[in-house]
Amino acid sequence: MLPWETDLAGRLNKDVITSELLRGNPLGDPYERPIWVYTPPGYDGSDERYPTVYMIQGYTGHISMWANRTPYRQPFLETADAVFARGEAPGCVVVYVDAWTAYGGSQFVDSPGTGRYHSYLCDEVVPWVDERYRTRADRDARGIAGKSSGGFGAMITPMLRPDLFGAFATHAGDSLYEYCYIPTFGKAARQLRAYDHDIFRWWAEFQGRVAFTKEEDGNLLMMLGCSACFSAREDATPELPFDPRSGELRPDVWQRWLDWDPVRMIDKYADALRSMRAIWIDGGTKDEWFLDLGAEAFRAGLTRIGVPENRIHFELFDAGHGQIEYRYPLSLAWLATQLSS
Amino acid sequence: MLPWETDLAGRLNKDVITSELLRGNPLGDPYERPIWVYTPPGYDGSDERYPTVYMIQGYTGHISMWANRTPYRQPFLETADAVFARGEAPGCVVVYVDAWTAYGGSQFVDSPGTGRYHSYLCDEVVPWVDERYRTRADRDARGIAGKSSGGFGAMITPMLRPDLFGAFATHAGDSLYEYCYIPTFGKAARQLRAYDHDIFRWWAEFQGRVAFTKEEDGNLLMMLGCSACFSAREDATPELPFDPRSGELRPDVWQRWLDWDPVRMIDKYADALRSMRAIWIDGGTKDEWFLDLGAEAFRAGLTRIGVPENRIHFELFDAGHGQIEYRYPLSLAWLATQLSS
Amino acid sequence: MLPWETDLAGRLNKDVITSELLRGNPLGDPYERPIWVYTPPGYDGSDERYPTVYMIQGYTGHISMWANRTPYRQPFLETADAVFARGEAPGCVVVYVDAWTAYGGSQFVDSPGTGRYHSYLCDEVVPWVDERYRTRADRDARGIAGKSSGGFGAMITPMLRPDLFGAFATHAGDSLYEYCYIPTFGKAARQLRAYDHDIFRWWAEFQGRVAFTKEEDGNLLMMLGCSACFSAREDATPELPFDPRSGELRPDVWQRWLDWDPVRMIDKYADALRSMRAIWIDGGTKDEWFLDLGAEAFRAGLTRIGVPENRIHFELFDAGHGQIEYRYPLSLAWLATQLSS
Amino acid sequence: MLPWETDLAGRLNKDVITSELLRGNPLGDPYERPIWVYTPPGYDGSDERYPTVYMIQGYTGHISMWANRTPYRQPFLETADAVFARGEAPGCVVVYVDAWTAYGGSQFVDSPGTGRYHSYLCDEVVPWVDERYRTRADRDARGIAGKSSGGFGAMITPMLRPDLFGAFATHAGDSLYEYCYIPTFGKAARQLRAYDHDIFRWWAEFQGRVAFTKEEDGNLLMMLGCSACFSAREDATPELPFDPRSGELRPDVWQRWLDWDPVRMIDKYADALRSMRAIWIDGGTKDEWFLDLGAEAFRAGLTRIGVPENRIHFELFDAGHGQIEYRYPLSLAWLATQLSS
Repeated sequence: MLPWETDLAGRLNKDVITSELLRGNPLGDPYERPIWVYTPPGYDGSDERYPTVYMIQGYTGHISMWANRTPYRQPFLETADAVFARGEAPGCVVVYVDAWTAYGGSQFVDSPGTGRYHSYLCDEVVPWVDERYRTRADRDARGIAGKSSGGFGAMITPMLRPDLFGAFATHAGDSLYEYCYIPTFGKAARQLRAYDHDIFRWWAEFQGRVAFTKEEDGNLLMMLGCSACFSAREDATPELPFDPRSGELRPDVWQRWLDWDPVRMIDKYADALRSMRAIWIDGGTKDEWFLDLGAEAFRAGLTRIGVPENRIHFELFDAGHGQIEYRYPLSLAWLATQLSS
Repeated sequence: MLPWETDLAGRLNKDVITSELLRGNPLGDPYERPIWVYTPPGYDGSDERYPTVYMIQGYTGHISMWANRTPYRQPFLETADAVFARGEAPGCVVVYVDAWTAYGGSQFVDSPGTGRYHSYLCDEVVPWVDERYRTRADRDARGIAGKSSGGFGAMITPMLRPDLFGAFATHAGDSLYEYCYIPTFGKAARQLRAYDHDIFRWWAEFQGRVAFTKEEDGNLLMMLGCSACFSAREDATPELPFDPRSGELRPDVWQRWLDWDPVRMIDKYADALRSMRAIWIDGGTKDEWFLDLGAEAFRAGLTRIGVPENRIHFELFDAGHGQIEYRYPLSLAWLATQLSS
Repeated sequence: MLPWETDLAGRLNKDVITSELLRGNPLGDPYERPIWVYTPPGYDGSDERYPTVYMIQGYTGHISMWANRTPYRQPFLETADAVFARGEAPGCVVVYVDAWTAYGGSQFVDSPGTGRYHSYLCDEVVPWVDERYRTRADRDARGIAGKSSGGFGAMITPMLRPDLFGAFATHAGDSLYEYCYIPTFGKAARQLRAYDHDIFRWWAEFQGRVAFTKEEDGNLLMMLGCSACFSAREDATPELPFDPRSGELRPDVWQRWLDWDPVRMIDKYADALRSMRAIWIDGGTKDEWFLDLGAEAFRAGLTRIGVPENRIHFELFDAGHGQIEYRYPLSLAWLATQLSS
Repeated sequence: MLPWETDLAGRLNKDVITSELLRGNPLGDPYERPIWVYTPPGYDGSDERYPTVYMIQGYTGHISMWANRTPYRQPFLETADAVFARGEAPGCVVVYVDAWTAYGGSQFVDSPGTGRYHSYLCDEVVPWVDERYRTRADRDARGIAGKSSGGFGAMITPMLRPDLFGAFATHAGDSLYEYCYIPTFGKAARQLRAYDHDIFRWWAEFQGRVAFTKEEDGNLLMMLGCSACFSAREDATPELPFDPRSGELRPDVWQRWLDWDPVRMIDKYADALRSMRAIWIDGGTKDEWFLDLGAEAFRAGLTRIGVPENRIHFELFDAGHGQIEYRYPLSLAWLATQLSS
């Protein structure tokens, strides 16, 4: 019965990983995390080793949302499987990683505000997978991909750890922060008027009622969460990068955010980027966060530092930020091909 | 690990029903259908009989979407379970019914354009459930609920079959068709300009590419589907209720739609409605299809024909059409209480 | 100094007309009305007689707004003059008519709710002009044009008085009322929630504060005004065509509106329409009131009753409802040419 | 006939000023400029000297637009007159200044890209008025006011020339540039895709067709114009503050813009600001350019440098950026009172 579910040609293994690095995290989030590992058709009957692609979610994305069904489309779990089932690319192990926090995301960084999600991903998840699956445990055979905040994570993780990752795909990944973030600060400053200019008043209220029943919920959640990721104090308190009444940027806090702008990180991590075997960059021309411009700027930066054009796939397509999961199998097939060569 | 999944206090049984009535349906849709039946905590260890509430999906809704997870909210499968686990209402059997078609829905009517979904629900699903579960197989202990097109189905099914259903809940149910449909006709007429004023050209294209990548997809799909449900020719061809170039209403076809407007059906089915034990009506004050007005009009009609006020729960709340699944456990608890008394 | 003003090649005469028909109108609006008459270049030094085109405003349009200046565009007063100054069409007398009321417009009909604006236009303004100017006082040399409600007036006035008008131009004229009006009823019903479902409470408030500082002002004003024009009681009270709580149509009142739908008037006034020498119909493909569909439907109706294609100019263009005054000189040149032949 | 026009209690004198400073401006704009001077009731029969308030237009505003009429509101020419006619404030001379350019505005600065509009205003217009009218030719009796870009001009002109101006009113004045401008850069970068990333291609096209018939016209015009005002090269070529393909900020050019951000100018011009007798700051809480936040930030800056609270009128009101000309008479009355004391 096709519309409702499909049997996979490969196999999806749902497991739990116990993270020592997340134990005692400041938000009291679980240190036992779900992890799903997909092995492609042919894996079970062979002793071949496979490249690996790590998939990470966007902001407010749970691992379990990979299984969500929408009308007239299949979930990525199935379209990814179809890539291999139809022979569009050499088989890969695909790892679905969870990095959720109480604020809705971790941006895949280590932060006193949320926990050590970058280290958890690199130093716990990757070895855990390599121990349990027949992967080619080599940066040249390991990629990472995601959308939105997941695209951001897919950009920065290989920059920080080129020893672990040799390829990545970013779909509408957060970048060029003046465009994707500054307008949201203006909105937040206005939204905070109803909360005496205090985001923690909103947060307290938000936790005590049905979520997302107020227009401001989405934006203020992201604001609090990204502040926790990018500009938390040592005591874990998130600091907003703007004055909550006037919206005026707080230059020192804002600089902490900018230090995480992939476009602005390019020069510092030029060697890492030049070592990548494959970089997929795309975005919708109507992306509500202007991440198509972020994509353009990131691509331009790669060219500037000398990343060869033939290692880059760049594409803008006619879409906004939402409902673009049909792009992921395209990058997966491409990454799988590059990583296998 | 709370954010990702919850163990149910009750039990969810996923099964398949073979429908003779859907066999050979004009769209070639499956006649074997998924069906999920939830039994409340306490069911397994007792021999008590329970009231039943049938849950039906909105347009483009699959049964499997009941399991979709969204951030900071639990799926209805879990919030419904919580109603009973927390003792907010007497236990009920909850039945999740599938009535999907290739056009994205059936409106739960019998139509030459889609199939006999009304009869399937009433004459196949209900007996199937009553045979397999310890239900109180009695219209006074049987309710039906849904949102949007599901709310529509929840209104009309008991009107047509008061022998089977004695209560219902409609959340933003389709009604007052001049408001919910006419503006969509205008949009459709414009959207069809790119398809030579021919919805079948759009349909052919839609089926051959990634769905919902064009702005018109959602509206034209609903247009085609509702025409298949409400105004198909005997040979199954959907007829649009408007001239596809000018948008001018085609009075006879439009009348076939109006005959299915719950607000306009009230007088014809007054006896059925007066026999209902409980009617829940709600809608968001900013509903994009003006279904809050439909709710007001439906309520006014019930009052006009003499349905006692104490059998009606009416409520408008501050929301649009989307993301209102947090309303369903409220009506479920209320229906469960009314059906158990 | 071009951007700020232009000397006309012709001459604009600003005058006042005293209307006996408007004296004692129910809203206490003035019966002395401004009237502007433009004579083309060459008029003064000759004794030639000229065709006449009457220009009427849209809803909430004052005669004085014809002189409003906007950036990078010239007012119609000047672009109309340029048509003749550049020799694009034979000279015409252009008459700017005022039909404002306290509700923002009269729809150019006789109504107990507003006054006898149709008769004033036909039986007072036209003779007044013909007496004072060297016009060809003949229906074959007299046209009328306008946009939006002015386009509506331009359609219905010649239908009612083909003895006076032999040509017209409607730019995004009100028609196909289910599309242009019904959605506004839904909005109004919602907006009236803040006024205890009573439009007269809104009206009282509106008159006592700065206009258009509340979002609902525009829509409710039009609602009240059109009800005064189309469905006033004999005692002048406007009756809404819908229930102010539920939005449900009141069929008898709504029928009074539909009787004024140009698309629905076509058959009754088929002879009048067939007698027209020239009919210009246009509209923007994104018109917020779907008046492009109204234009399509009106054109289709004309074809149906046998108006020859060569007397019709039909055009849809890429625009919404606003800022389309650059279209008027196009129809003026065309009408002037047809009326002169 | 009230709705159409009102006789003024005072007198409006329309004149032309010949500017030596604008002669030979780079855009070939006229150096003879319209200027309107209003004298209050009582002026003519007395020999009293009056304070003066200069009114400047927003972007794309012509002087002649002060006379535009809108429904249910009077133009500022009349509401300003009413302030004095009703005795709400001591009489003032009100000067309507023109500073239009081919790009739609001058931002009231001296620029190689547009001309010396700041100097024209200060060194030509002010003396011209003082010579011809019985003003109190003293900075303590001279104020300036405007909205949007006019509000910007009203902020910066007294900062630069406290010898000439002792008070000002800014309604939704451009400030806090990261919020009002950066999002427009993102939009512009996208809009330029259709013009091969070249704003001069758009400009060439724009000049050859009806203005504002394309969605991008408004934003690109402002982009070009503000670049001409803030970041023109010495040869008059406007330089965009961002890369036209990726939108990436060009730091040096963007800094030239930031140097004109009133919020960022406060410290440099602290003495001038502390010398002001009266400062009115307001903005709509839904201003599309976030100028309510600019207002907040400007106010906070004034407080920081020690401007006494009793010289500041600060107010946010429920509105967007448009249709707020009903605010101007409020600030005029207040300025007139402060300047007269």
